[in-house]
Amino acid sequence: MLRLVSSEAGFAARLEALLAFETAQDPAVDAAVAAICDAVKARGDVAVIEYTNRFDRMNVQTMAELTLGREALQAAHDRLPGAVRDALAAAAARVRHYHERQLAHSWHYEDEDGTLLGQQVTPLDRVGIYVPGGKAAYPSSVLMNALPAKVAGVGEIIMVVPTPGGEQNDLVLAAAYIAGVDKVFTCGGAQAVAALAYGTESVPQVDKITGPGNAYVAAAKRRVFGVVGIDMVAGPSEILVICDGETDPDWIAMDLFSQAEHDEIAQAILLCPSADYIARVEASIQKLLPTMPRRAIIEQSLGNRGALIEVRDLDEACEIANFIAPEHLELSVAQPEAWLGKLRHAGAIFMGRFTSESLGDYCAGPNHVLPTSRTARFASPLGVYDFQKRSSLIRVSQAGAQKLGRIASLLAHGEGLTAHARAAELRLDAPER
Amino acid sequence: MLRLVSSEAGFAARLEALLAFETAQDPAVDAAVAAICDAVKARGDVAVIEYTNRFDRMNVQTMAELTLGREALQAAHDRLPGAVRDALAAAAARVRHYHERQLAHSWHYEDEDGTLLGQQVTPLDRVGIYVPGGKAAYPSSVLMNALPAKVAGVGEIIMVVPTPGGEQNDLVLAAAYIAGVDKVFTCGGAQAVAALAYGTESVPQVDKITGPGNAYVAAAKRRVFGVVGIDMVAGPSEILVICDGETDPDWIAMDLFSQAEHDEIAQAILLCPSADYIARVEASIQKLLPTMPRRAIIEQSLGNRGALIEVRDLDEACEIANFIAPEHLELSVAQPEAWLGKLRHAGAIFMGRFTSESLGDYCAGPNHVLPTSRTARFASPLGVYDFQKRSSLIRVSQAGAQKLGRIASLLAHGEGLTAHARAAELRLDAPER
Repeated sequence: MLRLVSSEAGFAARLEALLAFETAQDPAVDAAVAAICDAVKARGDVAVIEYTNRFDRMNVQTMAELTLGREALQAAHDRLPGAVRDALAAAAARVRHYHERQLAHSWHYEDEDGTLLGQQVTPLDRVGIYVPGGKAAYPSSVLMNALPAKVAGVGEIIMVVPTPGGEQNDLVLAAAYIAGVDKVFTCGGAQAVAALAYGTESVPQVDKITGPGNAYVAAAKRRVFGVVGIDMVAGPSEILVICDGETDPDWIAMDLFSQAEHDEIAQAILLCPSADYIARVEASIQKLLPTMPRRAIIEQSLGNRGALIEVRDLDEACEIANFIAPEHLELSVAQPEAWLGKLRHAGAIFMGRFTSESLGDYCAGPNHVLPTSRTARFASPLGVYDFQKRSSLIRVSQAGAQKLGRIASLLAHGEGLTAHARAAELRLDAPER
Repeated sequence: MLRLVSSEAGFAARLEALLAFETAQDPAVDAAVAAICDAVKARGDVAVIEYTNRFDRMNVQTMAELTLGREALQAAHDRLPGAVRDALAAAAARVRHYHERQLAHSWHYEDEDGTLLGQQVTPLDRVGIYVPGGKAAYPSSVLMNALPAKVAGVGEIIMVVPTPGGEQNDLVLAAAYIAGVDKVFTCGGAQAVAALAYGTESVPQVDKITGPGNAYVAAAKRRVFGVVGIDMVAGPSEILVICDGETDPDWIAMDLFSQAEHDEIAQAILLCPSADYIARVEASIQKLLPTMPRRAIIEQSLGNRGALIEVRDLDEACEIANFIAPEHLELSVAQPEAWLGKLRHAGAIFMGRFTSESLGDYCAGPNHVLPTSRTARFASPLGVYDFQKRSSLIRVSQAGAQKLGRIASLLAHGEGLTAHARAAELRLDAPER
């Protein structure tokens, strides 16, 4: 695993190289996705069925065979062991509770002329949630995408999830049941994204699509952006741990593993002022690695993209963290609150030694859909605010129209927009009506 | 101008055809933009200078010649007539005041175990604002883009504006001065977007780019989305007027003009239950059209994409409005508040007869950057929230780690993520530390 020292020459360049991740859009993928989207737009269900049979090793004739209603979801839920059902329900309750704090409400005020200004906040009518199938089929992702939409008051939640070879995942369907998903289509890929964006005979058109997926799904989301809203195009998962050298090194090693085990291109980085402690974490890594079922993935991830970085002090660690703008930031230090004010960019901040990132992934309450690849510089965790939108409210009084009309008229003439100016001028000196 | 009656057969299809707007990405534009972006990424300033000289009929050798600091902006401001300066300042003050109501604040709470949950809200470090040059150089757009960023607390605001042939617009530069823009680069097109997204020797890399532009600018924004944040890809401007038939028909005609005068593909639609009133508006249009300097544009816009639609009643008008999800919605009726609850999708709602859309464009307070092309189904006006982002805060207590750790462990094992489970399990039964 790469070891760096922040005070050594060339550190900034080495850090930048470590973070570099090729996000270039692959023209071949783009072309394939364009063809799929066009086909679904033109031929609807028939195209979805064709692609699903081809890519997911299925053999269905109708969309009905790819459709699961609430009863099917409940059946999957009821098939689960009680302890797992309870864990899902407990996680859902905490996530719901946390997200209720994010609900925005309409507001308005009146100025001295009786002119009303504000915003009306409303939920989206219908959203689509993309859930990956196969090895990355995560019930927790279903909760994290569907519950904020539900809390926002979204009228209908449609989920798509591929079931390669027809294999359904009860945990995923149970999570959909608990989260209040209305309908599931067992298809995936660009064809599922296109079906949600354009609508087909069977798949209702949605207003926004959220959820992670592979390169084809990402390209399709980027393509339909504008026709529908999308959340973000997610990159590989990342964790940055800032440690003061006083946390059990086994804990830190396991926290790094828990990001690295996602896939070979996940990124796990430790920042610590103590070279001695870094060596202890490295020893823990060596000790614990052989015990991990996903050892091969973890080794590749840590080997390719991981790093243990010795920093001057925790102040410098915060500066570096702001540059990295990590998806997950663990602040495994004595007084985590003391450092919050110095941290500007991170998807989620896990404060204190007991706060393993994995608790946040499942059940602490906050969302685990977080900005990756330095996008925490400008993006936020998925939240209720992603499923609400705002309409400006303006009611200009007769008195207000006199004052505002003169300003608007002057500025509109300055922009050469005479009709704008005249519309304001017509209301000047008009009596209350 | 097209006249429709909502109760006639085929109305839904005709309405859909009226709204249809070809948003397909042009492959030729995409390819040109990709080449420009790659060149700017690879060669920085040199490429920006080359493209600017070529596309904007300029002849500069250095980026310094394309750079304006605060002094240059102030000089432009001071050159303006006093009345125009005052109007800009008054508009800016109202816009700033309104947007201050949108500021989000950090929040947190503790649960019964002493576990802290919340979100830290922070401004973006640096944003770039794209301002079109030439015929669509609007100082009001500068205010509407820069002021929400300023209110959010953004550290640095960089503006780009093309100056074809070297012609600078004092109103635009003065607006930049008033709004607190830090630096202006007089370049535009895809090359300016790429410079902001990737950074060059002279242009600092920003975290988000907002502002409207032509097809090349839109394609470039779509391309760099992910490297930086973007606001939205704007379509042609639209107004939908719902009138009860009691507003002066000249006012309504002029409100339709004020959207139509933007360009030939702008869209202006009237919904009204009275055929007689619609005829009066049509007569006003005929009467007023010859008096408009932008008559040719207005005629084309109303002829190609405008419509006067007779509806059954105002309830149906609201339903149709929700389908259209217009950028601007005028509610020119007696009791506008009574209809708000039925309106789900609109960028901005202008309530009452005195509230011409043009007042909102300039100085009422709310933002005039609004979702177009039916995107009000999922998108909001540009706001302070576009220049703030959130980091989740999680501090799990020792007691909380016991409860949450058991849930997380169960769910992580269910997803096959052993390191996630082990990270939680290591904290079980560990003493406070």
